[in-house]
Amino acid sequence: MTAEIWDVVVVGAGLSGLSAAHWLKKRDATMKILILEGKDRVGGRTVTVKLPAANDVDRWDLGGQWVGSTQTHVLKLIKELGLEVYPQFNMGRKVHHMGGPTSKVRTYKTSIPTLSPVVLMDFTQILWKIDRLCATVCVQDPSKTPNAEELDSMTLHTYIEKHAWTAELKEEIGLCSRSVFGIEPSQMSFLFFLMYATAAGGLLKLLESTPGCAQEFKIKGGTQQLSECLADRVGWKNVRLGCAVTAIWQDAEWARVVTATDTFLCRAVIVTCPPHLAAKINYQPALPSQREFLTQNMPVGHMIKFIITYKTAFWREKGFSGEIVAGSSTECPFCVTFDATSPFGNAALVGFIAGQQASHWESKEVGERKNAVLSSLVKYLGPEAASFIHYEEKDWAKEDYSGGCPVNVMAPGLLTYYHPSLRKPFGRIHWAGTETATQWCGYMDGAVQAGQRAALEVLAEVSHMTLTTEEQEELQCIQNVKSASKQRPSSKLVYLPTSKSVVIATLTIGAVLLLAQHQNTVLKIKEYFTNAFSPIKHKLLL
Amino acid sequence: MTAEIWDVVVVGAGLSGLSAAHWLKKRDATMKILILEGKDRVGGRTVTVKLPAANDVDRWDLGGQWVGSTQTHVLKLIKELGLEVYPQFNMGRKVHHMGGPTSKVRTYKTSIPTLSPVVLMDFTQILWKIDRLCATVCVQDPSKTPNAEELDSMTLHTYIEKHAWTAELKEEIGLCSRSVFGIEPSQMSFLFFLMYATAAGGLLKLLESTPGCAQEFKIKGGTQQLSECLADRVGWKNVRLGCAVTAIWQDAEWARVVTATDTFLCRAVIVTCPPHLAAKINYQPALPSQREFLTQNMPVGHMIKFIITYKTAFWREKGFSGEIVAGSSTECPFCVTFDATSPFGNAALVGFIAGQQASHWESKEVGERKNAVLSSLVKYLGPEAASFIHYEEKDWAKEDYSGGCPVNVMAPGLLTYYHPSLRKPFGRIHWAGTETATQWCGYMDGAVQAGQRAALEVLAEVSHMTLTTEEQEELQCIQNVKSASKQRPSSKLVYLPTSKSVVIATLTIGAVLLLAQHQNTVLKIKEYFTNAFSPIKHKLLL
Repeated sequence: MTAEIWDVVVVGAGLSGLSAAHWLKKRDATMKILILEGKDRVGGRTVTVKLPAANDVDRWDLGGQWVGSTQTHVLKLIKELGLEVYPQFNMGRKVHHMGGPTSKVRTYKTSIPTLSPVVLMDFTQILWKIDRLCATVCVQDPSKTPNAEELDSMTLHTYIEKHAWTAELKEEIGLCSRSVFGIEPSQMSFLFFLMYATAAGGLLKLLESTPGCAQEFKIKGGTQQLSECLADRVGWKNVRLGCAVTAIWQDAEWARVVTATDTFLCRAVIVTCPPHLAAKINYQPALPSQREFLTQNMPVGHMIKFIITYKTAFWREKGFSGEIVAGSSTECPFCVTFDATSPFGNAALVGFIAGQQASHWESKEVGERKNAVLSSLVKYLGPEAASFIHYEEKDWAKEDYSGGCPVNVMAPGLLTYYHPSLRKPFGRIHWAGTETATQWCGYMDGAVQAGQRAALEVLAEVSHMTLTTEEQEELQCIQNVKSASKQRPSSKLVYLPTSKSVVIATLTIGAVLLLAQHQNTVLKIKEYFTNAFSPIKHKLLL
Repeated sequence: MTAEIWDVVVVGAGLSGLSAAHWLKKRDATMKILILEGKDRVGGRTVTVKLPAANDVDRWDLGGQWVGSTQTHVLKLIKELGLEVYPQFNMGRKVHHMGGPTSKVRTYKTSIPTLSPVVLMDFTQILWKIDRLCATVCVQDPSKTPNAEELDSMTLHTYIEKHAWTAELKEEIGLCSRSVFGIEPSQMSFLFFLMYATAAGGLLKLLESTPGCAQEFKIKGGTQQLSECLADRVGWKNVRLGCAVTAIWQDAEWARVVTATDTFLCRAVIVTCPPHLAAKINYQPALPSQREFLTQNMPVGHMIKFIITYKTAFWREKGFSGEIVAGSSTECPFCVTFDATSPFGNAALVGFIAGQQASHWESKEVGERKNAVLSSLVKYLGPEAASFIHYEEKDWAKEDYSGGCPVNVMAPGLLTYYHPSLRKPFGRIHWAGTETATQWCGYMDGAVQAGQRAALEVLAEVSHMTLTTEEQEELQCIQNVKSASKQRPSSKLVYLPTSKSVVIATLTIGAVLLLAQHQNTVLKIKEYFTNAFSPIKHKLLL
């Protein structure tokens, strides 16, 4: 068997791997780059499918689907590839259900649920505390965060148990954790949670669909196009599908990348698959044990995503936005839904069954799961929800060469002991994938940033090419921890006014509530609160 | 390539795999059993080596080395194989160093360190609380433990931060965690910690070398003999070394066990390797995602074990036992040492660099690490420690087909969501290894119990053999969770008197200390304490 010779082999044809290849090709068109992918398609954790719709068929994303205006890396790529974005529909009443199956289903029109004053105050003070902590986090090297060991030694659950006052807020945070990570608050390091929020510009950025936030825009035609267009640029002949990498062996001269049928020789390898899958590859020489210990303890989220198409967006006609938020106590299988009507007007809803709820529901038959989803939609949006055109779902835990979605998190005690091995090259092996990003880690934007950073490493160290000033700055910004605090002046500017208004709101609500204890005027407070704090309410959303 | 046909293939020739094979062979001598092992030796996490010693050479264990009188499974096996045990030497003064490099080095002769009264009271109340919790734990199904979700949502670190009063006790618990698991308290679920302690009969059982405890006896000639003798019984022709299993494929008729060069067909497979290595095998059909999520989050401990041989046991001559306990703040690389003088009188010390300290020290050259170890020994035992015969160390993180030692723990949030998949067979695949044990989980005893349990599963389900009443009870005891509470009446009897005396001690010391605040009689309290509580002191040891 004669081994093929390439300059660079990229493991994984997701957004990170293809971005890396594209970046390298742009800088050096003569470079021979091979991309190996286990799946029979490109796109990794993004996949776009055609589904029966009101107007024949249309395309929907069953994986990553949103981008936001502060996600500069992916937006630049979208523009470069000639794709377009459109805003997430969020007008009308949203549904909010917490506190048990028989509790009242509330609706609200602003961006914050109609929480009781006590719960809102609780949320406000937690948000203030978390944002203050985020302002101290060093994303590039979280172990340099003040009090890092303490923050990394507890789970998100522990922090919330200690600092939240109300059961309802605790349920809301569980829902946030499931929606954002597909993971329960008990499984995640609190420092990791802070790092992740900071990399996005703050906690609210993860949760909202307002400008600058994670759920702001969608891509016309679907997100898998990003990878397909990149493969066009890189050349499909350089992308081998159905070729899972089983081993990477290095000697003084070569890296040898092994699949079930072939061996490829190259000067550099970029491994982009999620950490729990990168851990399954056989490395010789063995990876440093620091790296092994790290990837042994980075669980991936569990999400079942569903799309339901309808003849009309009946919820819009009834004044609903399509957004439903349901706590785990409500017996509703999903944690959140959104309007997913296509740019061509084909009506649809999208929703997520996540975390512990995904573990519970995945064991059921698809029919039972579908009926439970529809029955909840009928409960929240009306009987029209039962008359759907098509129900499609994807359990990412069962997807080969993904094994979960949307992201791998870190269990407690990793960031402070083993984190440096996350991005540190090992011989000819460089690490990418959204988990290695320092901006919008876990998102498509992070995947692109990580791919480009790994490409820069390869350019600098393998091709011995001179990086531009801009490229040097980009690389230094991620690698050079000393300059980390200088990197986020804008995020601090964002935090401080939020923090100030939030603390003022907290103190005011607190004072009013204390008064209420003596005057039994809860109704009056609610009224007062609704009027006085609407500007602050607009800033908050769960 | 023609595939060989066997009845049962066992993956891993450690104590668990060989016990399973031995048990099957005893019940059905005609059964064709093949054991595949990646290493070039049997024994897994036990390995016995010949080292230069005072009297030529002698044998020492570089892996698991201790057994205890309540470890019925391994003791029965030791007897059956004609091996002998001898007690761990623990006479004389022990060294105890906590609270920073310049703090006073204390020595003590009883089984409990000379703690200050406040720290002792702190230790007493923590022990009381933990033992009370242990008495409620359901080892077979920890999710059935009262308040399981809460206990599983926090790390051991969080529990100790909340319930320990003194910095010294917190350092002691860190040391315990490192010594027992090779893991920091921040990396482990508190419920897992409780389950592990309960499976051993209580927390003190893990820590002491007194009767019934984990460090009670050693095996003459070393622990690897267990596996070697088992291989003798099973037949070395049925053990293939250097044959790592890369894939297990199942269809309606067969399980196909794949190595780099061969495929073996069989009716049942017993996978015994540690969970993080079992996760690297390619399974078709894919394992249930519950199982994948579980093994993604079970980090293995990090331990570097060293043996130093001497001409004479000079420490004994000076009145030392050889036991040194040193906190991570002391700049001492190891956390604990013991006398390791062989039954033939060849003097030696054994010690462990573990957890975060192992991560720190593994990056140094062996010479630097050795010098740091020796310099600490000189500090604690005297200048004679510098004149050694031989220094041997083993970093288990660097051992192929182990990747760590002594055991895989569980990060928070696993026991309550994913635990059932730990032992649940998947088609023809049965799971063993000490991590799957319900008695002395993590120890050699657990490895034997797990191997025998998996063998019983195979006998019952694959060979359709009738199990004896005793075998049925054994299997039911592990599988049938309803009977779990009935299974440990003796442990409750053990806990209660300890708890009572401990709480009385706590209250008395507390009262005396409260008095002291008013009378400034700390010295008198120390005296009082030393005289009055010596019977209780004997019960406690760190």
